[in-house]
Amino acid sequence: MNQQFKTVMFTGDSITDCDRARPIGDGFGRMGGSYVSRIFVDTWADFPTHNIRYLNSAISGNTTKMLLDRFDEDVLAYRPDYVFMMIGVNDAWRHFDGSKFSQILIYPEESGKNMEKMILKTLETGAVPVIISPYFLDNNHEDPMRKMVDAINVEYKALAEKYNIGYIDVQAVFDEYLKTGSCYILSGDRVHPKSVGISIIARTIYNHPDFRVILHD
Amino acid sequence: MNQQFKTVMFTGDSITDCDRARPIGDGFGRMGGSYVSRIFVDTWADFPTHNIRYLNSAISGNTTKMLLDRFDEDVLAYRPDYVFMMIGVNDAWRHFDGSKFSQILIYPEESGKNMEKMILKTLETGAVPVIISPYFLDNNHEDPMRKMVDAINVEYKALAEKYNIGYIDVQAVFDEYLKTGSCYILSGDRVHPKSVGISIIARTIYNHPDFRVILHD
Amino acid sequence: MNQQFKTVMFTGDSITDCDRARPIGDGFGRMGGSYVSRIFVDTWADFPTHNIRYLNSAISGNTTKMLLDRFDEDVLAYRPDYVFMMIGVNDAWRHFDGSKFSQILIYPEESGKNMEKMILKTLETGAVPVIISPYFLDNNHEDPMRKMVDAINVEYKALAEKYNIGYIDVQAVFDEYLKTGSCYILSGDRVHPKSVGISIIARTIYNHPDFRVILHD
Amino acid sequence: MNQQFKTVMFTGDSITDCDRARPIGDGFGRMGGSYVSRIFVDTWADFPTHNIRYLNSAISGNTTKMLLDRFDEDVLAYRPDYVFMMIGVNDAWRHFDGSKFSQILIYPEESGKNMEKMILKTLETGAVPVIISPYFLDNNHEDPMRKMVDAINVEYKALAEKYNIGYIDVQAVFDEYLKTGSCYILSGDRVHPKSVGISIIARTIYNHPDFRVILHD
Amino acid sequence: MNQQFKTVMFTGDSITDCDRARPIGDGFGRMGGSYVSRIFVDTWADFPTHNIRYLNSAISGNTTKMLLDRFDEDVLAYRPDYVFMMIGVNDAWRHFDGSKFSQILIYPEESGKNMEKMILKTLETGAVPVIISPYFLDNNHEDPMRKMVDAINVEYKALAEKYNIGYIDVQAVFDEYLKTGSCYILSGDRVHPKSVGISIIARTIYNHPDFRVILHD
Amino acid sequence: MNQQFKTVMFTGDSITDCDRARPIGDGFGRMGGSYVSRIFVDTWADFPTHNIRYLNSAISGNTTKMLLDRFDEDVLAYRPDYVFMMIGVNDAWRHFDGSKFSQILIYPEESGKNMEKMILKTLETGAVPVIISPYFLDNNHEDPMRKMVDAINVEYKALAEKYNIGYIDVQAVFDEYLKTGSCYILSGDRVHPKSVGISIIARTIYNHPDFRVILHD
Amino acid sequence: MNQQFKTVMFTGDSITDCDRARPIGDGFGRMGGSYVSRIFVDTWADFPTHNIRYLNSAISGNTTKMLLDRFDEDVLAYRPDYVFMMIGVNDAWRHFDGSKFSQILIYPEESGKNMEKMILKTLETGAVPVIISPYFLDNNHEDPMRKMVDAINVEYKALAEKYNIGYIDVQAVFDEYLKTGSCYILSGDRVHPKSVGISIIARTIYNHPDFRVILHD
Amino acid sequence: MNQQFKTVMFTGDSITDCDRARPIGDGFGRMGGSYVSRIFVDTWADFPTHNIRYLNSAISGNTTKMLLDRFDEDVLAYRPDYVFMMIGVNDAWRHFDGSKFSQILIYPEESGKNMEKMILKTLETGAVPVIISPYFLDNNHEDPMRKMVDAINVEYKALAEKYNIGYIDVQAVFDEYLKTGSCYILSGDRVHPKSVGISIIARTIYNHPDFRVILHD
Repeated sequence: MNQQFKTVMFTGDSITDCDRARPIGDGFGRMGGSYVSRIFVDTWADFPTHNIRYLNSAISGNTTKMLLDRFDEDVLAYRPDYVFMMIGVNDAWRHFDGSKFSQILIYPEESGKNMEKMILKTLETGAVPVIISPYFLDNNHEDPMRKMVDAINVEYKALAEKYNIGYIDVQAVFDEYLKTGSCYILSGDRVHPKSVGISIIARTIYNHPDFRVILHD
Repeated sequence: MNQQFKTVMFTGDSITDCDRARPIGDGFGRMGGSYVSRIFVDTWADFPTHNIRYLNSAISGNTTKMLLDRFDEDVLAYRPDYVFMMIGVNDAWRHFDGSKFSQILIYPEESGKNMEKMILKTLETGAVPVIISPYFLDNNHEDPMRKMVDAINVEYKALAEKYNIGYIDVQAVFDEYLKTGSCYILSGDRVHPKSVGISIIARTIYNHPDFRVILHD
Repeated sequence: MNQQFKTVMFTGDSITDCDRARPIGDGFGRMGGSYVSRIFVDTWADFPTHNIRYLNSAISGNTTKMLLDRFDEDVLAYRPDYVFMMIGVNDAWRHFDGSKFSQILIYPEESGKNMEKMILKTLETGAVPVIISPYFLDNNHEDPMRKMVDAINVEYKALAEKYNIGYIDVQAVFDEYLKTGSCYILSGDRVHPKSVGISIIARTIYNHPDFRVILHD
Repeated sequence: MNQQFKTVMFTGDSITDCDRARPIGDGFGRMGGSYVSRIFVDTWADFPTHNIRYLNSAISGNTTKMLLDRFDEDVLAYRPDYVFMMIGVNDAWRHFDGSKFSQILIYPEESGKNMEKMILKTLETGAVPVIISPYFLDNNHEDPMRKMVDAINVEYKALAEKYNIGYIDVQAVFDEYLKTGSCYILSGDRVHPKSVGISIIARTIYNHPDFRVILHD
Repeated sequence: MNQQFKTVMFTGDSITDCDRARPIGDGFGRMGGSYVSRIFVDTWADFPTHNIRYLNSAISGNTTKMLLDRFDEDVLAYRPDYVFMMIGVNDAWRHFDGSKFSQILIYPEESGKNMEKMILKTLETGAVPVIISPYFLDNNHEDPMRKMVDAINVEYKALAEKYNIGYIDVQAVFDEYLKTGSCYILSGDRVHPKSVGISIIARTIYNHPDFRVILHD
Repeated sequence: MNQQFKTVMFTGDSITDCDRARPIGDGFGRMGGSYVSRIFVDTWADFPTHNIRYLNSAISGNTTKMLLDRFDEDVLAYRPDYVFMMIGVNDAWRHFDGSKFSQILIYPEESGKNMEKMILKTLETGAVPVIISPYFLDNNHEDPMRKMVDAINVEYKALAEKYNIGYIDVQAVFDEYLKTGSCYILSGDRVHPKSVGISIIARTIYNHPDFRVILHD
Repeated sequence: MNQQFKTVMFTGDSITDCDRARPIGDGFGRMGGSYVSRIFVDTWADFPTHNIRYLNSAISGNTTKMLLDRFDEDVLAYRPDYVFMMIGVNDAWRHFDGSKFSQILIYPEESGKNMEKMILKTLETGAVPVIISPYFLDNNHEDPMRKMVDAINVEYKALAEKYNIGYIDVQAVFDEYLKTGSCYILSGDRVHPKSVGISIIARTIYNHPDFRVILHD
Repeated sequence: MNQQFKTVMFTGDSITDCDRARPIGDGFGRMGGSYVSRIFVDTWADFPTHNIRYLNSAISGNTTKMLLDRFDEDVLAYRPDYVFMMIGVNDAWRHFDGSKFSQILIYPEESGKNMEKMILKTLETGAVPVIISPYFLDNNHEDPMRKMVDAINVEYKALAEKYNIGYIDVQAVFDEYLKTGSCYILSGDRVHPKSVGISIIARTIYNHPDFRVILHD
């Protein structure tokens, strides 16, 4: 291509996928129904002459293991300048939804190791990795799945500090919401966001300094 | 009809509806996908010459108010000998799912009053009313929706005692399950049962003395 | 309904309709695909305990004449506290799309008179009317359709001043956009907005003082 | 996989297939509409922490010849601990449905030989084979198809004794049913079970000692 | 109509209905998929200038009671010259398929009385009634449904003799077939004919003297 | 309507209908797939500021009798200035397609009388009737259907002369074509035109003086 | 296969194809909607224990050239005992339907040569070839397409005599029909038969001595 | 093919494609919905014995770069005598519709160079190339996309003169139309023609001397 632009890759699981185009979400009407679509649209609305190419390579159902296995081909092969990873909730969920016989279960420590490998791969290319926290939409910290998601986020936060990379804490934003709002406004199953949940994720990222720097760059 | 049989009516909300036939679920292939269908099938499997006519008049989304409003026409007009009511969870759910502007919210006390009116209407016809408890598939008793479902069940249990009628405690059975099993095995949204949840409800009722008496009658 | 809330009605033509629910858009998932849906969602995202009921009664293809004819039944009968009207572009468009034999053509003066009648009807009920400007996505002011849309907006602005009511100038916002951005980013036909156009309309309204007062009221 | 579990494979013809997932039925929602699905669901309902992986590799229309031809690839390759085979009715049926020109007809003796080969293959892997009897839903033992199904079952029973393996006699259970119940309650064509027939098959297996041992193991 | 022709009405249940046109099968492509269609087509093939108008008013699921209830409106109102009735198998079938609670069961004696009323109604108009025998595709005369169908045919034959009207014995033709052919060639469920069964019914009627007289008249 | 325009109504049978809009073809995209659509489009292409409103009220299968029966309601009620009638081929076709029992057959003389009534009704309103000749795409004048279509056209031509109204002789144009071209280029069944046939009809009318006068009026 | 039977192959163009199964029509419900299906069904109806395997390998649109090109693979590879060929009408039709630029046109002499090659190929295998005449449903022998079909049949008849093989003259049977019946009863386009035409073809073949010998063999 | 005819290839982008058949539009019903279809049909209507084979190889979305890349395979491989190219509007459009990150942008000079290569390739084969001008349906010459389309046409006209080949100026014809007619009659988006626009393009070409020579040749 003869244009100068920055490539921003979003990747992850069903929360990012939402029927994006295949093989890769790229351009108008190809971003799917997730927060990525809204970030794409609002960027065009706010910055008519912007120079950002958004890509979406998430696949529903992915664990960190699955994403790691396809990371070279589906993420780095597109030469992104930034890689936003929203992954990990399926590492926890598979422990609770009866998949134990047909999937290898991933524990928080391994989830962190997978994430670390993806960070390192990204850094090696010179691109900027950013972690978007997985979340569970229940403010009962004793819920077993919440516990495991929290443990995964502990791993991820530590990695963000270790490598001095961005960490966008969507869980914290949702926790604030759940102080007064019901989880059923955000999601039917406490994982997949409905429209209000998508709006919150999209604006949390869009207004976050680690994303804002790209827009104003 | 020239046959002698007992008519057993199931009614309620989406947990009982599940695409039953309209205007009324009656006969093979017309019971929908709920626990009623399984009770229907197992009765035929266990008792080839039984004399029970099952009917299903549940409507998805019903609150006790909505069921009460159509009780004469949709339930009693079919002259049931037994009326199984599984209702009330939507009375609680509407407080949490953003319906507050388009639906009148029902509080536990009013839910009890609506249930009492349906019990009385049923008793007046000489039929036997049985309450199947609504439930919430979370063993966190501090969850606000669980609290409200519990409060509704308190009302219903009191009514069962007051009128000396059957009360099938599905919530208790699920609570036992949740001690070791995950809610995601039973349901995606903690309300609508998936296949395992349906099996548990069906067998809890089918094996309950208040139902068994009909089979062996 | 036993809740205390403010009712905000949006009405107009296809730009507001976008497959909203029938008979009236009311509640989650029933607002259609227009800017109204985004305002609805962002209100829930920003204000978990808000007290606004949004309604959408727009119908694709409506002129001011058609909206006026159904205004009592489709708008005022719902007792709105606020009425946002985005109408008028079809008054202009019908002059240019070959409809001259099957539709009565409406000229700007008559368009203003129809709008005035709707303002007066709204004010009589004690509700607050707000005009959202129609627009044409071409910054060539000599284009014949742009001329007519401009003439209609002259009428509407005068009415807004005369009755001291809100006027949200979407045309001005789009004109600013078109200084650097192409109309094809916003719309295929210079009238129906695509996603970026919808985002701009939604946020223009959502952040406008005449709307903001409702949220913070 | 890092979990310890037992693998239970069901295989056979259309009575077991019922639109199971491809390439193999494995996990929630992938078992199809047969008795296997019900056994799967009831296991989860009764034993929340069980350790059984169910698989379904049946294919509609299979004869013993066809199943034998794909036995290594579709059954043993999955390393089952138990193999439940419900096969043989098509060996008989093809003699009566006009297929004589397009299919090689299999007689009871050959049906037994095919079954014996599958038993031996299973035993060689150390897995436990169990025969579920084919059946014909007509208690007229002079019906020519019933005669042939009976002859096949004679072969199978002899094999069960010879190798001292399980034989679940579904035909006997159905014969008991047909003493008072009509075949039309169980099946339209005396072969494919409808819901009541499926319930009987499922519970006959689920409660059979040769199956029960797995659950309580 | 200004043409001179004879009207031949076929009526009955699903064996005659087969998706015929509504409100009445009349003319090319409107006879449905039953034997009536084949008789219609072969008449045109053999007699290019024939003068027979065929009508089909059968309705799937009809018992003699249901047909009697609509006989004036759906049969006689079309002023047929001949009325062919193929009815009665559902009178028997409802005793065996689990419909006992939702349908009034009809016994052979009542079936005969209903048939007699239809014969008398037909004779009163001056039209010629012809009975086409119901049948059950099993040559086991001890089968309970075969017994009941036989009993119904005993009633019908007696009526044919009493009123000296035609009786086309399809059961006898099928019994001959079943001496060497399998019932599965004719039908999946021993009631609804497949293509070979339809051919046999069609040609039995088409070549029967009680039908032939119309063609050569 | 406040515009000044001439209304041109086309009516007839399937050759004019072709899935036109209901209740009446009026405006862009509502003319169906017949020659009317092409005349509509070419008028807009040649005369951007024309003042002709085209309407299409044809119904597939219509005979002159059927059109006459609905002429007041479906044709004259729209106050046309011109009425183009392309009708009559079904009067002939019904004699040959096996409809003789379900339709009253219309002979050429009656076809002429029906046409005359429609002409008179049209003239009474002050509108201009124009006959478009029916046709049969076979230049074998001994074909029985061609003979009858010719006889009908004799009637129609006489009426055109008697009342001094337009008669557009499509049959003559097609006869010229068939001197060198095959009927299969024009139509599969010698009646319904394919694209080439439609083009010929459309241009024959569009360039005919009796039509041209409207365009240049 | 271990059964002894005769294989009868039908092949040709759309008149024989009619949505037969792919890759080859073989067995119940796989013969398509043509005369072959009716011959198949009536054979089973008349001879419950027959020993004929019917196959259908016709392909819509085939000319003799196309059939010849695939004759080894699609016809002889199935080792038929009899080969019925109904082909040739497209050789004629392509001259008249505007295909002249995209298909090589075949003249009667070449059509005969192609047919001769297929006869010889069949005879070489020891199988019996039978020609079913192509036809055109118009008794105007001056029609250009009729002329060409007649010329093709002249070639085919000569071949039948030369090789002393069967020739079933469907054209002659249809010509007899057309003396009193209309072509529209048989076909819309004078080539593809409707139900009455199919019945005539089927029975002409089924009752022809060259076919009858197979049934009674 | 054994016929003598001239091959006329149309190629380009969506304006020519319109769902043409794949791999190549060739023959009746395979030209798609564009102006090519109308030229095809009118040629058959006007010249029943013509000798022109029309082909359509356009692909929606093509730029001159994309067409050039497939020119040998999709255009010249069919050995056309004439090649009509309607291409270039997407070269301009991609600058304005937000495709800048996923497509290489083509400027007018490069567009001309691509066109020149296709002209030279065509001339080398001995075929006649003809340029059909791209167009933009807005008579505002200051519109940025109109400017770019105009610049492209400057290039193309210069090439037409340089190589002395045909140039059919559709833009000029549309400009004349837009003096009195609205662009919305011709197109919704000022690029894709609706029926009236298609009629104008088709007749502009069909009546152009550079096309007429083929018809009368």
